[in-house]
This record gives sequence, C-alpha cells and structure tokens, in this order.
Amino acid sequence: MLKEMLENVRSRVPLIHNITNYVTVNDCANILLACGGYAIMGEDPDEVVELTAMCDGLVLNMGTPNPRKLSALLKAGQEANRLGHPVILDPVGVGSSAFRREAAAELLDKLQFTAIRGNAAEIATLVSGTEAHPGVDADIEGLYPHKAAEENALRLARKTCAVVILSGDTDIVTDGERLYRVHNGHPMMRTVTGSGCQLSALLGSYITASPRQTLTAALAGVCAMGLAGELAHERLGSLDGNASYRNYMIDAIYNLTPETLEKGAKYETNE
Amino acid sequence: MLKEMLENVRSRVPLIHNITNYVTVNDCANILLACGGYAIMGEDPDEVVELTAMCDGLVLNMGTPNPRKLSALLKAGQEANRLGHPVILDPVGVGSSAFRREAAAELLDKLQFTAIRGNAAEIATLVSGTEAHPGVDADIEGLYPHKAAEENALRLARKTCAVVILSGDTDIVTDGERLYRVHNGHPMMRTVTGSGCQLSALLGSYITASPRQTLTAALAGVCAMGLAGELAHERLGSLDGNASYRNYMIDAIYNLTPETLEKGAKYETNE
Amino acid sequence: MLKEMLENVRSRVPLIHNITNYVTVNDCANILLACGGYAIMGEDPDEVVELTAMCDGLVLNMGTPNPRKLSALLKAGQEANRLGHPVILDPVGVGSSAFRREAAAELLDKLQFTAIRGNAAEIATLVSGTEAHPGVDADIEGLYPHKAAEENALRLARKTCAVVILSGDTDIVTDGERLYRVHNGHPMMRTVTGSGCQLSALLGSYITASPRQTLTAALAGVCAMGLAGELAHERLGSLDGNASYRNYMIDAIYNLTPETLEKGAKYETNE
Repeated sequence: MLKEMLENVRSRVPLIHNITNYVTVNDCANILLACGGYAIMGEDPDEVVELTAMCDGLVLNMGTPNPRKLSALLKAGQEANRLGHPVILDPVGVGSSAFRREAAAELLDKLQFTAIRGNAAEIATLVSGTEAHPGVDADIEGLYPHKAAEENALRLARKTCAVVILSGDTDIVTDGERLYRVHNGHPMMRTVTGSGCQLSALLGSYITASPRQTLTAALAGVCAMGLAGELAHERLGSLDGNASYRNYMIDAIYNLTPETLEKGAKYETNE
Repeated sequence: MLKEMLENVRSRVPLIHNITNYVTVNDCANILLACGGYAIMGEDPDEVVELTAMCDGLVLNMGTPNPRKLSALLKAGQEANRLGHPVILDPVGVGSSAFRREAAAELLDKLQFTAIRGNAAEIATLVSGTEAHPGVDADIEGLYPHKAAEENALRLARKTCAVVILSGDTDIVTDGERLYRVHNGHPMMRTVTGSGCQLSALLGSYITASPRQTLTAALAGVCAMGLAGELAHERLGSLDGNASYRNYMIDAIYNLTPETLEKGAKYETNE
Repeated sequence: MLKEMLENVRSRVPLIHNITNYVTVNDCANILLACGGYAIMGEDPDEVVELTAMCDGLVLNMGTPNPRKLSALLKAGQEANRLGHPVILDPVGVGSSAFRREAAAELLDKLQFTAIRGNAAEIATLVSGTEAHPGVDADIEGLYPHKAAEENALRLARKTCAVVILSGDTDIVTDGERLYRVHNGHPMMRTVTGSGCQLSALLGSYITASPRQTLTAALAGVCAMGLAGELAHERLGSLDGNASYRNYMIDAIYNLTPETLEKGAKYETNE
C-alpha cells in the first residue's frame, strides 16, 4: 500500500511551491529533491500567484512570519484552492505569538487545506485558538499526553476537513475517522532544527503525487521520514552528532526504496 | 591556461559582495570561502552601495525576489559599474513570473554585466523577454536542445556584451564570438538545490581575480564546478545521498589544486 | 570551573530567542540544539516581544540588517532588559556601513548588554564609533595587533558594563577587570561562514544557563567552540574540506562532555 505512494512521487516528479521560513528553507528544498520532487521557494506577494499556478502542489509554512509573508501565504493558498492543487499547512510555533495565532485563524478561515502537520502544542492551538505554549522543538510530551493529542488531531481533522498529521513520540495521521499511530522515528530527530518543516515539505510531494489518496500518502510520508530518522541513527559513527545526522536523514530519504518503505513502516490503525 | 585562474583566486583573495537568495545563501558563502575568496552578503538598499564599494566584485542573484531587494540589486550594480568592478548576474527562475521578467529587463537595461549565468530556460527568457518556462532545476534538456541553447547564449552575449555561461548537460561559455563546450559535471548536481547559485558565486571569485581574462576565468570556474561534481560523485558511499553530495562538492572546491583543474578540465571550442 | 558551565546548559536546557541573519541562521539553530539548548528565531517587530518573553535569553545578531529588523532588535532587547534576561550582541560587520554603525550606536545607547562578541575590527568600531574596516572573516590580525585588541576589549567592557568576547588567533574574554586569553581553536574555523555567529548563539546558551557567572560562562563557551574547532580538524579525512569541517564542528559541540571541556580548555589570565 505505502510503496505505491513513493513510486508515484518518483514517477510523477511533483513540482511543489514552498513558502517556508529562512531557518530551514535549504533543508526543505534538498529533502524535496531527495524524495523525488522539485521545489520553487518564492514568497513575494507580487509573484506567488504565478509560482503557485505553475506548480502541482503548495506547502505553507508559518515559521519566521511577517505581514508581507502572510499576504503571500493567503494569495498562494487561494490560487491553489482555485486550481484544485493540494495545500499543506505547517503552523510553526503558532502558539508563540498573537500575530501567529491570528494569522493561522485567517488562513483556516479563508483556505481549504488538504493536510495540516504540526506537533501536539501546535495542533492544540489550532483546535482551541487560545493556546500560548511556544510549540517549538522542546519536549512537550508531558504537556500533551497521547490521548489528548489524538483527540485534538481528530477534532481538527473534522473541523477543517483536512488530513491532520501530529508529530510526536508516536505520530498520528487522521482524516477525522480513520486514525493511524506511527511508531517509526528516533528521538534524535528533535536535535535537528526543522525536521518538522522537512516533513511538511516531503508531505507536499507525497500528497501531490497521489491526490486521491491523501490519507495513505500522508501515512507513507510520515513513515518515510521516521524510517529515515532510524536509518540515519544506525549510520552514526562515534564522532557524529546532530549535524551529520541531519545530512544522513536527507541521504536516507534520497536512497529510500519503495520496498524498504513498505517493509520498514510501523503503524497501527483504530479500525 | 586554466590553472592560472585558480592561482589568481588563491593569491588575490577577492572579496565578493553577494546579493543572493535565502534558499542557498549559506552554500554560496561557503563555496566562496572554499575556492579562496571572501563573501559579504548584505542586501538592504540602505547599505549596499557601501558594501559594494569595499568589495572587489559583485554577484547579483535574482532568487526569492521582492521590490526592496530589486532596489538593492540596482543600487549595488550601479555602484559596481561606476567603480569598474566585475558584475555577475544569475537570473534565477526568471521565466517564472512577470515580476522577475520585468526586474531582469530593468537590470539588463540599466547595468552593464561582466557575465551572466543561467540554465537554458533562463537564458532563453533573457533573449526573448517573454519566455514563461519556470526555469528551475527540472529537466529542461528536452525543451531546449543543445543547438538552440548555443544560439541563445551567443545572442545574449552579443546583445549584452557580457560573457554568457549556460549550465546544462553540456555547459556553454561564450563571449559572443568564441564559444566553449564544457563536458565536466555529473547529473547528480541537479539533486542539490542551488548548485547553479553556487557556481555563480564561484564565478564572481574567478572573474574578479582575473579581470582582464573574463572568458578564460569563466571557463575555469565552470570546469572547476563540474570537476567538483565529478570528484564528489566518486567519493559517494553506498549510504550517501544528495545531502552528503552537497558537502562533498564544496569540499572538492576547497581541495582543488590548479594542477587538478588543468588536467581534469574537459572542453572544446568552436575555433 | 568550566565543566559546571556545560553541565548547567545540559540540565537547564535554556530556550534562546535568536534574532540573527539569513546567511547563518540554520547553523545557529543547530549549534544551539547541539550544545543542549533550544532556539526560537522569529524576527518580526509584531511578535518579537512575545517571543523574547517566553524565552530565557536573547541573542541579537546584526548580520544582513534592515530597518524592520533593527526595530525588532530594539523591541526584543528592551523586553529582555525589562525581564532581566541575558542579552548577547553580535555586531556583525558593524564597520561596513553607516547604517550598521548607527544601528549599533542606537542599540548600545538604549540597551544593557550582558555580553558582546565580535572580531578585532568589530570591537574597534564599537569603541571608536567611526571605524570603517569591513570586519568580515578576512585576515585582520595584521591590522589589529593583539595588544591593541586587548585594550579595545577592556575599554568596551568598561564602557558598556558587558562581558566582551573578542575572537581572533587568541580569543579575549574580559569584564573590564579580569581578562582571559584563550588559546583554543584552529585557523580552519575562518573557512566556515558564520563560525562567529555560531559562537554568539552558543554563548547565549552558556550565559543564560549560568546567569550569575557571566564571565566564567563566556570563557567556557569560547573554549568549547575552540575545542570543537580542534576536534573537527583532527577528524578531517584527505578529501574533507570546509563543508565537512562545518558539520564536524557542530558534531563536536554535540558530543562535548564537561570533562573534555575542562581538560581541553587552554587559557591564561591577567591576574
């Protein structure tokens, strides 16, 4: 089931418009190339409509926001909705400022998302609209126990009609009915800045290449990234740290075969 | 012939003002350091004139454009022209939006470039002014067969009095009369975001270090980057992917000797 | 003495708000994670006050400045001062434009800094207010002999009541009375763009984790970065260059133990 999702990325070579953040943008572009897609990264309101129109899918990442970028996110999203392109939202650190919370509310109000990916704090903020937890890489497992996280993911998926991907010790992928718990991944992924942003970029590619199987494509992308984290960890030498680990993860996505993905994926479902 | 070009970079240590894009800026700075130059990257209109004036050469990269950056590109370019500094243009994705096409037209109208580097789609857009092909990393060999690419490169060189470098399966370097076809490089270079931006930054260093030999310096820079792509590919282990490859290319530029460049360069000329 | 400083970072996991520059931001975030802290990088004036308030410390980096970012630097700094958070200034290239010199003067006038880190040219500019030397990675040892650099560091520390860290062949750390000369480090660190920015980010983490021992924490951070440069150099293979070296430095910070830091630190004091 999952291996077809990767085969579709490799054969269809989706071109993804990524409006992302200046912290992790280079890694997002390289992981898109690694998985088999292509990336365009422009973010000025004067050109995003054209960029979106020439691409196959769109990823909107809210990191390092500013008013001009927010305008670009909206314009690009509206064009993608008009054209029926998949649109993925990554609400980076949405709980950390009123500006981000209001921006997210406006995006959710005006756009239809195909998928939304965040950590437990970010998804909780989108559900409640009031959460103030920073929602950064910090250890938030204690604050959002798994049961509460699942409920928030289900609620957000039902409210937005989007597939919701919640990253954590156990990743959650749900369309509001069916729910997958993914057990791939490695704790060291938290030591690489933007591993979440990279997953969102990758999901743009997977979901765009299999537009009628959003839930399965999202599950495949989450398993692929988690597997890459595991394979990268196996490869670590005694002197390697988080910088080499970052490279090894992207390398693993580059070398991932459909068969390795199918065999290595570890998930269960609520059905 | 080519080895003197690298020797000049190493002995003169050119300081290059780079106005580039936030996707690839870090790699551009590190490849400049790798080849033997230094980089300054500021891009605010309030300070670019001073930054340009304290440097030896200027690289203008049109990636992730916005109106404020366009103003900076113009101001910096005019100061460099006034001072007689080499100016290199990289028209990143110039076909992908009206904003970029108009910006490029304004830059070509108001500035004298020493060299222009792009892929076949970008050079075609600069020649015709109307091309709408995205001009990203995608496989564009089919769209622009080699013969048409050569003719576009020659036309742009004659029209702008700049040396034109067209990157592709075979790279083209021409001043409008003499034309070189460079057979260095490896297809895996396309899997690294910004390998073209890196080449443009590197060319800034090579051309600035040998200002009266622009064509030869450009040829040397193109061969150097292609050789780095080959050497990086030879070095790949079974688990390595595009992230390690990116590092190995910059490493190869760092370790490249004038002798290796002279011996490894593979090119032919029309004369 | 120094090993407690690293133990404090690892046990307290300081959350650092970094307003930095788009050239080196990804490395700054990854080195913060490597040493044991967490990073938030937002820089819009509309949200920096909230971001600063939810963090434990603040690093203000003046690279790639613009008027909107300057406003963010001021707002964040004032909030950090109000809350009593440590604030570190990195006056990147402050001598290279009037805009940067005036911005630095305003920051020094309106904010109280806990520590200021720069190279000899940058510190000289902050002392004199008029220096026009670019202050980039270039070899500036000849222009600022060690004795003059020490005097400038002492003067700036006394004038600003901040700990001053001056990076060079010999690093200087002083509070205006006591002065340390640090002999860790390797010349190859100059071939990596932003190794200074990375040190400033790291210092944010060390100083914030030991707020009542600013001078010792700064000394520990400088020794840690220098040691990482030495360990990374020992690890270089024959094909490695500055790109691999960049990764190895961050890896070394990730793997650095308090004992290795204590044993490997090489410094002397004026007392």
